[in-house]
Amino acid sequence: MITLSLIGIGTGNVDHVTLAAVRALNEADVILLPRKGEAKSDLLDLRRVLCEELLDKAASTRIVEFDLPTRDGERPYLNAVDEWHDAIASVWAELMDKHLPNGGRVGMLVWGDPSLYDSSLRIAKRLTDSGRAVEVNVIPGITSLQVLTAEHRIPLNALAGAVHITTGRRLRERGWPEDAATVAVMLDSGGAFTAIKQEGVYIWWGAYLGMEKQCLIEGRLHEVSAQIIERRTMLREAYGWIMDCYLMAREPLL
Amino acid sequence: MITLSLIGIGTGNVDHVTLAAVRALNEADVILLPRKGEAKSDLLDLRRVLCEELLDKAASTRIVEFDLPTRDGERPYLNAVDEWHDAIASVWAELMDKHLPNGGRVGMLVWGDPSLYDSSLRIAKRLTDSGRAVEVNVIPGITSLQVLTAEHRIPLNALAGAVHITTGRRLRERGWPEDAATVAVMLDSGGAFTAIKQEGVYIWWGAYLGMEKQCLIEGRLHEVSAQIIERRTMLREAYGWIMDCYLMAREPLL
Repeated sequence: MITLSLIGIGTGNVDHVTLAAVRALNEADVILLPRKGEAKSDLLDLRRVLCEELLDKAASTRIVEFDLPTRDGERPYLNAVDEWHDAIASVWAELMDKHLPNGGRVGMLVWGDPSLYDSSLRIAKRLTDSGRAVEVNVIPGITSLQVLTAEHRIPLNALAGAVHITTGRRLRERGWPEDAATVAVMLDSGGAFTAIKQEGVYIWWGAYLGMEKQCLIEGRLHEVSAQIIERRTMLREAYGWIMDCYLMAREPLL
Repeated sequence: MITLSLIGIGTGNVDHVTLAAVRALNEADVILLPRKGEAKSDLLDLRRVLCEELLDKAASTRIVEFDLPTRDGERPYLNAVDEWHDAIASVWAELMDKHLPNGGRVGMLVWGDPSLYDSSLRIAKRLTDSGRAVEVNVIPGITSLQVLTAEHRIPLNALAGAVHITTGRRLRERGWPEDAATVAVMLDSGGAFTAIKQEGVYIWWGAYLGMEKQCLIEGRLHEVSAQIIERRTMLREAYGWIMDCYLMAREPLL
């Protein structure tokens, strides 16, 4: 029997890790750390740093790095994602067979929280669906949206208002969602907010949230829109990768 | 100068507290603990337990309990809330003047995360708007929604889908929001899901999330709707208070 703990580790700032996450890391027999290619090696480094800082010297936890399969960028998005998840599940299964042939505890470090725009639960389900004796455990973690609002000192919701969390892709396709005083956007490959009517909209943007290179911009959307796009391009070139998100509101939040 | 730290403490389970929250508690000169009346004394007890477990013996942090003003339930919701926040801000100001006349660090323990359906940021803004030298700090915490999804082992979003977070009141008034594959409902005084078309909807419900008395129900909405309402009534009678939330989806989440 394998116990697979999906451990939300927040945004790379060791301070955002919960006590439950620290315990789960230390109780794991094996921690699987995915290598995602050169450009995002910062993220692997951060995972290594977290393990170093949070693992007791006495813990017998082994750290196993592995190459993450790559997604086929040519295929339609949902098909490509589906096959990609199959491929990752196969790799996880191989690693479990190799490193824990008699069962045990596997920990996976998940950026943010395993519940929000993360594939780990879907990949884990492939293992249980295929009949493997795998029990899945989820340890919630602080998401980048929570760090965004904390750093800007704003709430996610307007008073008694609804919050819509969406992707850059959907914002472009659908515009401002109905009955949402605030809209949080994740996974935007850049500037999806240019597709909506900017008048009267306020934006709070953040990149590399929780990390040392964190960058924040806020203001009226029509005034800061170009600045955000420019800064984003510059940062991505400088670091080779970027992760950002933002919140928009049509009425004052405080 | 007062530094006011709004410290997200998760849902009452000490394991969900972050390392940053532990540090902020220990760095505070004074922690303000609101008393909310007999019915919710469980919550004050939990705050006391968190302080006991997380404060170093060496820390010089003083804990100050105070009576929270009550909200006028007779007045229109938004007006009543506005006046209530004014009253709470006055109490905070008095407590700061009394306990830290020369400035210092004040910590407030906030259930869940200060960004989500919480008043602390709005109350703190009244202090800064009135010209007080108060600097506000936000420490994100795990929300009940995150514990809900972790305990049910589900994501918050369908694959590439949008998430709508709303209140029981809004769900009743507006029904299922457009372009949301999943809808998370908080602050429901009971059974707002009866106001929507139940066919084809799946629900994951949880009460007292993260606590020992945690209760989970999931299933097709038309099959478990009555069971949830009944259980909720029973639990609220047994404990004198209830906090619950739920996620609903119209398509499989995994």
